[in-house]
Amino acid sequence: MKGDSVLITGSSRGIGLQLVTQLANNSNRPATIIATARNPAALQELSKTHSGLHIATFDVSSEQSISSASEQVQSIVGNSGLNCLINNAAIGFSTNISTVTPEAMMTMFQVNTVAPLFVTKTAAARSGGMGIHRAAVINMSSVLGSITLNCGDAAKFRSYAYRTSKAALNMVTRCLAADLESSGILCMSLHPGWVRTDMGGPHADLTVEQSVSGILSVLFSLSERDHGEFLDYHGQKLQW
Amino acid sequence: MKGDSVLITGSSRGIGLQLVTQLANNSNRPATIIATARNPAALQELSKTHSGLHIATFDVSSEQSISSASEQVQSIVGNSGLNCLINNAAIGFSTNISTVTPEAMMTMFQVNTVAPLFVTKTAAARSGGMGIHRAAVINMSSVLGSITLNCGDAAKFRSYAYRTSKAALNMVTRCLAADLESSGILCMSLHPGWVRTDMGGPHADLTVEQSVSGILSVLFSLSERDHGEFLDYHGQKLQW
Ligand SMILES: NC(=O)c1ccc[n+]([C@@H]2O[C@H](COP(=O)([O-])OP(=O)(O)OC[C@H]3O[C@@H](n4cnc5c(N)ncnc54)[C@H](OP(=O)(O)O)[C@@H]3O)[C@@H](O)[C@H]2O)c1
Ligand SMILES: NC(=O)c1ccc[n+]([C@@H]2O[C@H](COP(=O)([O-])OP(=O)(O)OC[C@H]3O[C@@H](n4cnc5c(N)ncnc54)[C@H](OP(=O)(O)O)[C@@H]3O)[C@@H](O)[C@H]2O)c1
Repeated sequence: MKGDSVLITGSSRGIGLQLVTQLANNSNRPATIIATARNPAALQELSKTHSGLHIATFDVSSEQSISSASEQVQSIVGNSGLNCLINNAAIGFSTNISTVTPEAMMTMFQVNTVAPLFVTKTAAARSGGMGIHRAAVINMSSVLGSITLNCGDAAKFRSYAYRTSKAALNMVTRCLAADLESSGILCMSLHPGWVRTDMGGPHADLTVEQSVSGILSVLFSLSERDHGEFLDYHGQKLQW
Repeated sequence: MKGDSVLITGSSRGIGLQLVTQLANNSNRPATIIATARNPAALQELSKTHSGLHIATFDVSSEQSISSASEQVQSIVGNSGLNCLINNAAIGFSTNISTVTPEAMMTMFQVNTVAPLFVTKTAAARSGGMGIHRAAVINMSSVLGSITLNCGDAAKFRSYAYRTSKAALNMVTRCLAADLESSGILCMSLHPGWVRTDMGGPHADLTVEQSVSGILSVLFSLSERDHGEFLDYHGQKLQW
């Protein structure tokens, strides 16, 4: 986050929109913030009042969109490349043993697991190593993706498709951590807490402001020892 | 395994074929062994010399095939239902950060993660709880699916698609463990070791005989404490 540029996927609403908002208002903010969304309408207002806030239309589940967004990003960040990528976009709905379908499994895996991998691959390739300062890939995961913690009371929230997609995303984090280490790119999974967004629902523990303020504290203090780890919005380590 | 019937997917070759062979020759064998494969030619010989060995054509990645195989299984096991399901069929090829494609990710997830879930769902529904004695679902996973162990030297084997599919399968195991507990169905993930099969290659540690003899010892001594766990062919607990 000490880097010069950050890109956030899925910033039309929820945690992504709040991340962009709090980042744009932060005194320690990166010079360039690239807020991306399938439909970036909600971001236009914000960009009028904040300099260095760029907006790009970006559907993470489309290969064509990844490629055209990447050209746009290149033209924004130029030779210095992108420093920090926050893979935040995801879909989530509950699928228990009765309601889960192969289609739900495949769709959530595509958007929540495969898309972040290929967005990262494209960003890392384009920017020749994603910058030289504290470069980072942050995968927005979930405690529901923890295989270890999926037992006892915590197993009561049933969601085959979402849980498998986030466990698989955590594996992507570990694979990327191994592959990107030599380029000096920190890679980690982050759990934002249970947050009152469209996805988290009205009964969640945290407001989106609380979650994002925690997330930013964690991101501003990342160090080598967090490489390849799974942290929550308090900076607490979670088990895989 | 004390149960009366066991079904194994992917028994045309490798670990699946050896499982069927050693089970059929075991003094403690289940009365009914259902060996299934997309192309069960290799199994015909074996079935001639062993009674109680049934063969069914079964492509785990086809919903239609799951449904017709399930009817065939029902007609074999009748009212007593199926006791033990071994989800062994899988595909595996190496996909590193340069060679991995969205298609490879999706295909391996479909065969290695989604298929075992829906085979299990169908089997559990059909048999009204998969029998009443020590009923079990065994998901053939891999240490490469351990997110925790994917670091340091162990991370050197790069395979985004295979690793994510097996991590996601491990999550399926934990979800099923929560859902099937009340029906008394034990559910676990098993790592067979690194085995000289078409998938494991010629430089693997173990012969298929060694791996399967270990697997059968583990299966014959399963108890409640193994429910929801991840064991290797020695019965050692692995981290998720
Ligand atoms: N809320 C929670 O309690 C909670 C807990 C744990 C983890 N998380 C994770 O935190 C992240 C943000 O969640 P949230 O609560 O903010 O969810 P949300 O309110 O449902 O917002 C999801 C965001 O992702 C975007 N998105 C979905 N598919 C996309 C695609 N194909 N391309 C581009 N953008 C796409 C949505 O865009 P559209 O507006 O275009 O649909 C939206 O901006 C997710 O990764 C989620 O899994 C949330
Ligand atoms: N070998 C190892 O070192 C190792 C290590 C860890 C885990 N494992 C796991 O152990 C299990 C068995 O591996 P293996 O080494 O015996 O692999 P293998 O020699 O490649 O055999 C794979 C088996 O799965 C079957 N299969 C694949 N897709 C199928 C489908 N759609 N429907 C039905 N059957 C299908 C194959 O049938 P066809 O003949 O029709 O292709 C074959 O019988 C797998 O789950 C694998 O991931 C193996």
